[in-house]
Amino acid sequence: MSKVVRVDMTNKKVTVEALPEKYKGMGGRWLSSAMVNDEVPADCHPLGPNNKLVFAPGFLTGTRAPNSGRISVGGKSPLTGGIKESNAGTPFSQNLARMGYTALVVEGLPEDSKQWILKLDVNGGELLPADDLVGKGAYESGNMIWDKFGEKKAFVVNGPAGEAKMAMAGIAFNDPEGRAARYAGRGGLGAVLGSKGLKAIVLDDTDAPGVKPANEELLRSGQKKLADAILSHDVTKKGGGLNSYGTAVLINILNEAGGLPTRNFSSGEFDGASKISGEALAEAAEKRGGAGTMGHRCHPGCIINCSTVYPREDGTEHVSSVEYESIWSLGANLCVDNLDEVAEMVWLCNDLGIDTIEAGVMLGVAMEAGLAEFGDGPAAINLLKELYKGSPLGHILGQGAHFTGEAYGVTRVPTVKRQGMPAYEPRAVKGIGVTYATSTMGADHTAGYTIAPEIMSVGGSEDPLKTKGKVGLSKGLQDATAFLDAAGYCIFIAFPILDIPSGFEGVIDTANGMLGTDYTADDVGRIGDEILRIEREFNLKAGLGKEADRMPEFMKYEKLPPHNNVWDITDEELDSFWD
Amino acid sequence: MSKVVRVDMTNKKVTVEALPEKYKGMGGRWLSSAMVNDEVPADCHPLGPNNKLVFAPGFLTGTRAPNSGRISVGGKSPLTGGIKESNAGTPFSQNLARMGYTALVVEGLPEDSKQWILKLDVNGGELLPADDLVGKGAYESGNMIWDKFGEKKAFVVNGPAGEAKMAMAGIAFNDPEGRAARYAGRGGLGAVLGSKGLKAIVLDDTDAPGVKPANEELLRSGQKKLADAILSHDVTKKGGGLNSYGTAVLINILNEAGGLPTRNFSSGEFDGASKISGEALAEAAEKRGGAGTMGHRCHPGCIINCSTVYPREDGTEHVSSVEYESIWSLGANLCVDNLDEVAEMVWLCNDLGIDTIEAGVMLGVAMEAGLAEFGDGPAAINLLKELYKGSPLGHILGQGAHFTGEAYGVTRVPTVKRQGMPAYEPRAVKGIGVTYATSTMGADHTAGYTIAPEIMSVGGSEDPLKTKGKVGLSKGLQDATAFLDAAGYCIFIAFPILDIPSGFEGVIDTANGMLGTDYTADDVGRIGDEILRIEREFNLKAGLGKEADRMPEFMKYEKLPPHNNVWDITDEELDSFWD
Repeated sequence: MSKVVRVDMTNKKVTVEALPEKYKGMGGRWLSSAMVNDEVPADCHPLGPNNKLVFAPGFLTGTRAPNSGRISVGGKSPLTGGIKESNAGTPFSQNLARMGYTALVVEGLPEDSKQWILKLDVNGGELLPADDLVGKGAYESGNMIWDKFGEKKAFVVNGPAGEAKMAMAGIAFNDPEGRAARYAGRGGLGAVLGSKGLKAIVLDDTDAPGVKPANEELLRSGQKKLADAILSHDVTKKGGGLNSYGTAVLINILNEAGGLPTRNFSSGEFDGASKISGEALAEAAEKRGGAGTMGHRCHPGCIINCSTVYPREDGTEHVSSVEYESIWSLGANLCVDNLDEVAEMVWLCNDLGIDTIEAGVMLGVAMEAGLAEFGDGPAAINLLKELYKGSPLGHILGQGAHFTGEAYGVTRVPTVKRQGMPAYEPRAVKGIGVTYATSTMGADHTAGYTIAPEIMSVGGSEDPLKTKGKVGLSKGLQDATAFLDAAGYCIFIAFPILDIPSGFEGVIDTANGMLGTDYTADDVGRIGDEILRIEREFNLKAGLGKEADRMPEFMKYEKLPPHNNVWDITDEELDSFWD
Repeated sequence: MSKVVRVDMTNKKVTVEALPEKYKGMGGRWLSSAMVNDEVPADCHPLGPNNKLVFAPGFLTGTRAPNSGRISVGGKSPLTGGIKESNAGTPFSQNLARMGYTALVVEGLPEDSKQWILKLDVNGGELLPADDLVGKGAYESGNMIWDKFGEKKAFVVNGPAGEAKMAMAGIAFNDPEGRAARYAGRGGLGAVLGSKGLKAIVLDDTDAPGVKPANEELLRSGQKKLADAILSHDVTKKGGGLNSYGTAVLINILNEAGGLPTRNFSSGEFDGASKISGEALAEAAEKRGGAGTMGHRCHPGCIINCSTVYPREDGTEHVSSVEYESIWSLGANLCVDNLDEVAEMVWLCNDLGIDTIEAGVMLGVAMEAGLAEFGDGPAAINLLKELYKGSPLGHILGQGAHFTGEAYGVTRVPTVKRQGMPAYEPRAVKGIGVTYATSTMGADHTAGYTIAPEIMSVGGSEDPLKTKGKVGLSKGLQDATAFLDAAGYCIFIAFPILDIPSGFEGVIDTANGMLGTDYTADDVGRIGDEILRIEREFNLKAGLGKEADRMPEFMKYEKLPPHNNVWDITDEELDSFWD
């Protein structure tokens, strides 16, 4: 039976109920967004008693479909003020699904300021005092959870930033080795967890019934089609780009395209790019040896393995994972060309429990405001450490890039709906700008990854500097992505399924095999569109209408080197997204 | 001839042009809002090159109509993100009007970080370096302007908060004795002035042609009708409430009504109210003697004289003026019951160049966040001093109440459209809550002062706790007020003209006498409504729709003592405001 477990933090009660009929067959982002839209008043304070957090594994999560181990977390975002779905790949997702929980809902607000651990098993759960974890970093918190509840127990922990209700705080899940390092990072949901006084969630999956596909055979044949496609596509195969160099394979590619945001979005080219590239990362992992690993994975069942473990000079583990987005945000965006400094910042972000993208965009704005010099990695590290202290400066920076810009009167602030832009310059890659502007999530690349056709010639080929057709391109990709997020699939399966028809069939077959539906290719777009419109409905109620679907003004009048382009897709074109 | 003077801060050019035909007959808020809506892109960054500041004296300003010496300042607000009109009573307004300038527009943005003084005469103006004024407090800056350009020269100065582009910064005008203490305080327009690098404006009114009424006789008879009404109404006459006790006459009245927001809007009653009342203020002025003055005025031609000069214990001047709003925000709202401490905070706010209402609401939120104890005046004074330092804490607090609440994750934040609420509790006085919610300006009491009928039995009598009819009440008053703001009249003439028909005739006669129009009573409402809709149009373009016309969530679930009422006017009723 599909169940929903609810944790009422006001009365400290845990209850289990059957999944309401209307949500049957939904999962991941589809379910989290629908429940948030149904249950959370759009005008509520994100840190008040009426916001909720919904954890929902994808509807394929817990099956053996490849790369289907993602979990969506939804709620009203303290960062954007709109709806938020942020997802992560983690064994937690698979365990929760196999325990029979289609959704976990955290609601209410404690009247005291204590922090709690939610312990869940197949029969329900209980809240235990988290006194010994209070104030601890995410890494140490995760280690203490394993010490206390046993190794291999899947968990969520909240870092010090989330406890302090900072809008940059993400939600940390365990990776297969127990690192608290797989993040539903974006949009500040860690602050919501902090407001609710929940420091950790731990799963005891003893006697988990597992997931029951409607058509085992169809699921299995779909799995195979998808796996074959993944393992034959240049981007995702063993020894392919992602597997060999991690996601950081993109650093050199974007830099060559003039689309790697540099010096707080004032150039699209970074002199030091090669020193922080995926190639440099792989070289360090090999040369230093020891813990250094390329081809690490975030959850069992992943066959791409794009995660990494970055070693110190002596071969001991520094941090996992060092991703393209983090290397860019904490590297190129700050003019820092030293991978060890970047790795230290990633470690700090993970331990604080904050989104590395927002952290880097924030630091870029802070440097623009004169709080540190561009290029000064140690100074950037010190700024991040302010968050531990809870100093006034920490309370500024912890709220993210938009907030930091407001505090210091900075006008070059690369955000949409108050969320920091990821690692693609919209003036140099126009389609991704459409995604940033129109996504219900605020500036987000994964929502509709136009980089595939615009930069990588995957799923067709589009001139990144052209504006024509980019709204439709983004809409199509946003629809498809929302479906993948509902299924619990990793976004990187998009590369093979865009190019290989049988891979796309595999996605549909696995969905139908699991759910007993007869979805066709059209349903992928239809369901994706439905999800986006649920989210849009929430945002409209929250006051985020078309005027929130806008690029920051400076991009309209500042020309970006090397192409010397401005943002020139009109507001009217952006508004046509929802027509 | 009516002229517009434009100051282009990008190219440091001052030009004079004829007032465009479409703006003829407009003044004050009418003109500033129309020009802002016409010329400022609603989606621009408030501190960027495309925002403008429009200074516009009322259309009666410069005449001898009583209490008509107000000036409107308009622009896109860094605090609310919407349109802003903030007005002040000052000789500056009258001088500018008599020099033939219907509007002064500041536009563009300097590429350097220098600060400038704009010197205007009847033929135009020039920009002079303000190097010696940089970083100086508003008081000292004002004194330096008189030293440099001669006594009695009307001026504007920007305080250190405005220079630092803090969203709480107001715009300081001179009073008749040269204090830089008459504020267009609300909405952060001082930050816009700071972004434009304008530290001061000084008027040389040599050879000012004066204003030319269309019908001198009608103007004169209107003046007399209005003056007679003002001088016969209990609230505004010589020896009446405002003249004897200043605006602080309201402290005891609101406290008795249970509507004096206390301890950051957690009660409607303050134990220490009598110690900071208008009566206590008058007693101190009399007892201490020396500089102590009740019945001071903000501009020549005022016949109400509600301003005050508060003396130190030794009779020397501490600060002018100590108003109801400031005593409340920096007193009752913080549980501070010491007038000397309040006066010191008012002095600091004036010298920093910040809005005393926003400052007090911000301090209430800061105390809620644990940055100081409620009741600790010296600690509140120290928090204000952080703004001079430009410390991170100063940069948080300087952005106002909403921002401070976000920085520390506080949910009890009494703001609408990010602007702090004034001194009337909407749960205890429902009509003023409608004004807070629906005003185009953010939470603002002057926009539609329902306190007159709800608390003072002026213009009828309404039960403050009832919800019925309050939307219509607020709309009628907001329309009428917008007309008064266009004329340059002080809002306090509303008391006599609401109760005395000949006083209201005086307003219409003075308008027709000046402009040569044949306005009737209906036109007052029609023009007021037109002004509001211009502002609403801007706000809608800026993304502030009906979802921004909302009370803070906590007021819907926290009962306010002593009446134990929540905010219970529905969103649908609020939305009917614009029908």
